Amino acid sequence: MAGYVPGEQPPAGARLIKLNTNENPYPPSPAVVSAIRAELEVGAAVGERLRLYSDPQAELLRETAAEVTGFPREGILTGNGSDELLAVLARAFLDPGDVVAYPYPTYLLYETMARIQDARIESIDFPDDYSLPARLFGSDARLVFVANPNSPSGTSCSVRDLARLADSLPRGVVVVDEAYGAFAGESALDLARARLNVVVLRTLSKSHSLAGMRIGLLFGSAEMVLGLRKVRDSYSLDRLAIVAGAAALRDTAWLAEITARITATRARLIAGLTSLGMRPLPSRANFVFVRLGSPARAQAAQYFLRQRGILVRYFSMRLLDDGLRITVGTDQEIDALLEALAAFMTSIESGAS
Amino acid sequence: MAGYVPGEQPPAGARLIKLNTNENPYPPSPAVVSAIRAELEVGAAVGERLRLYSDPQAELLRETAAEVTGFPREGILTGNGSDELLAVLARAFLDPGDVVAYPYPTYLLYETMARIQDARIESIDFPDDYSLPARLFGSDARLVFVANPNSPSGTSCSVRDLARLADSLPRGVVVVDEAYGAFAGESALDLARARLNVVVLRTLSKSHSLAGMRIGLLFGSAEMVLGLRKVRDSYSLDRLAIVAGAAALRDTAWLAEITARITATRARLIAGLTSLGMRPLPSRANFVFVRLGSPARAQAAQYFLRQRGILVRYFSMRLLDDGLRITVGTDQEIDALLEALAAFMTSIESGAS
Repeated sequence: MAGYVPGEQPPAGARLIKLNTNENPYPPSPAVVSAIRAELEVGAAVGERLRLYSDPQAELLRETAAEVTGFPREGILTGNGSDELLAVLARAFLDPGDVVAYPYPTYLLYETMARIQDARIESIDFPDDYSLPARLFGSDARLVFVANPNSPSGTSCSVRDLARLADSLPRGVVVVDEAYGAFAGESALDLARARLNVVVLRTLSKSHSLAGMRIGLLFGSAEMVLGLRKVRDSYSLDRLAIVAGAAALRDTAWLAEITARITATRARLIAGLTSLGMRPLPSRANFVFVRLGSPARAQAAQYFLRQRGILVRYFSMRLLDDGLRITVGTDQEIDALLEALAAFMTSIESGAS
Repeated sequence: MAGYVPGEQPPAGARLIKLNTNENPYPPSPAVVSAIRAELEVGAAVGERLRLYSDPQAELLRETAAEVTGFPREGILTGNGSDELLAVLARAFLDPGDVVAYPYPTYLLYETMARIQDARIESIDFPDDYSLPARLFGSDARLVFVANPNSPSGTSCSVRDLARLADSLPRGVVVVDEAYGAFAGESALDLARARLNVVVLRTLSKSHSLAGMRIGLLFGSAEMVLGLRKVRDSYSLDRLAIVAGAAALRDTAWLAEITARITATRARLIAGLTSLGMRPLPSRANFVFVRLGSPARAQAAQYFLRQRGILVRYFSMRLLDDGLRITVGTDQEIDALLEALAAFMTSIESGAS
């Protein structure tokens, strides 16, 4: 069996099937492009509008987010991707030595942010069923990060559990990162409205096919938003991102359609993986984490796929190194992936015989 | 004489002449709009490209900046406006209690950034001629910020003085903020190449008429750039900002033309203010600071102008509260401003007689 060779490039000229960074396989709403073009047309000269500063509060985007979600506008903050909002939360809440807690494994940026602030990190392993770890409850952490659905596992916990978690913290804020929330069918937005110590993060990167535009949204209390603004760059979103984001949010029919397609393809992917004898985790995100039995086999599968022009994500980390994270692409892409994985399984079996 | 009334709106229907935030009065290069449109056209569906993450290092923009300036690419870092780069520098260099020094009055964000990092601030008054304050030299500050040209004074110091400053610091880095550098005819880029403790910041907001796109550039050593990346958001520029910035940088003829127009109009503005009996500071930026003799008179002038649909900037701060900062607009806009200021002077004189 061939070992993992890092840096291996797919054959020249091959069209890549990119299932490694959880991008949406479908284009953004056509209304997004119309809004960008319209912004370029305003004024005496084409592009004239770009010479003027963008709205520091991105009110158009906040207002649209408020309309679409029903969340009070005063509790909404926009950011240059939800990554900026995570950084803003870390800067606002963490003094050196403060505790940051999160389940493991999860999104790597939580650790990075905590380290930048010299915070103490409590990384608590998920139990086998990926429910919230018992030790998170009652933690004296200042911030508790919960990606829900979680990455890279794709699993999720219930809003009821998140409410219990929030209530159990003597001085902590729960940050519910719903980067993949659109694919889950459940959201903690109502919780963020009801509890002062719950914040929800959203991004338009995955759900609205706008990873290339860097648009994040934070939902919390009006007081918290006022405080967070002070540690944020003043003009974080450019003019085109603001109009693009607002147009994307407004086209709820587009969102519903591509989300339905992705969740249907996800079910096919999980069924296909299972029928190949693999063990995918249950997923409520736009990706599936599948265990292959050993790190060697997972790496070999990644290499095998890459040679066929299919990129998936391998994590060389504890509890993850025996699996692959596969983004839910189009039906066609997932068919190609399953076919290649079937060939991989056959090659292993013949090699082992 | 009418006192200053805050919040006063210009008459409804009036076209505003906006000379209050140092935006470029001319549109960006037509190549900018072409590049954005081209990015929207790539792919099977319109806007398809936006679903994919942007390049975290914005290599296209770095490469173009390297080509245009001759600066080594490894020493260039891009940011979401130079404001993000200022924040990144503050986070990377400042521990609580470290000293940050800068001349006063200058760009307000230096103080904000220093406070966020709990740094100690040494704000040292400029001498009357706005040369570098003697007390900056030999300071044990970790970071020394020098906006050059300075805002809101518009004045500048020589690169030779900046070199002397850098050499005098036992452990400090000089951050030369050249937000207005394109209008000055002199740059510290060579100094940033020669000295490890000099960093230059540029923004495309003013010089390239892209305030609405948030594009900043940092020029320093390759080692420093590697370190700064660690405390920066991973995907700080979106796809459209990257292609817009690269196109703007490449059109050096456009830059030369609008910069020449603005510096010519600046000379007319200074001459016009002087002939009205006012005392403008010498300016190498795209704005002029002019003293009117007293805070009451400066506020009255701002109010008078605002009533005529002309916005200028008033700073209610020590050493600045007797003057106005006026952005260099088009010739037509500056004619309107000078006419209104002449009317203001007449109204004062008649009121005083």
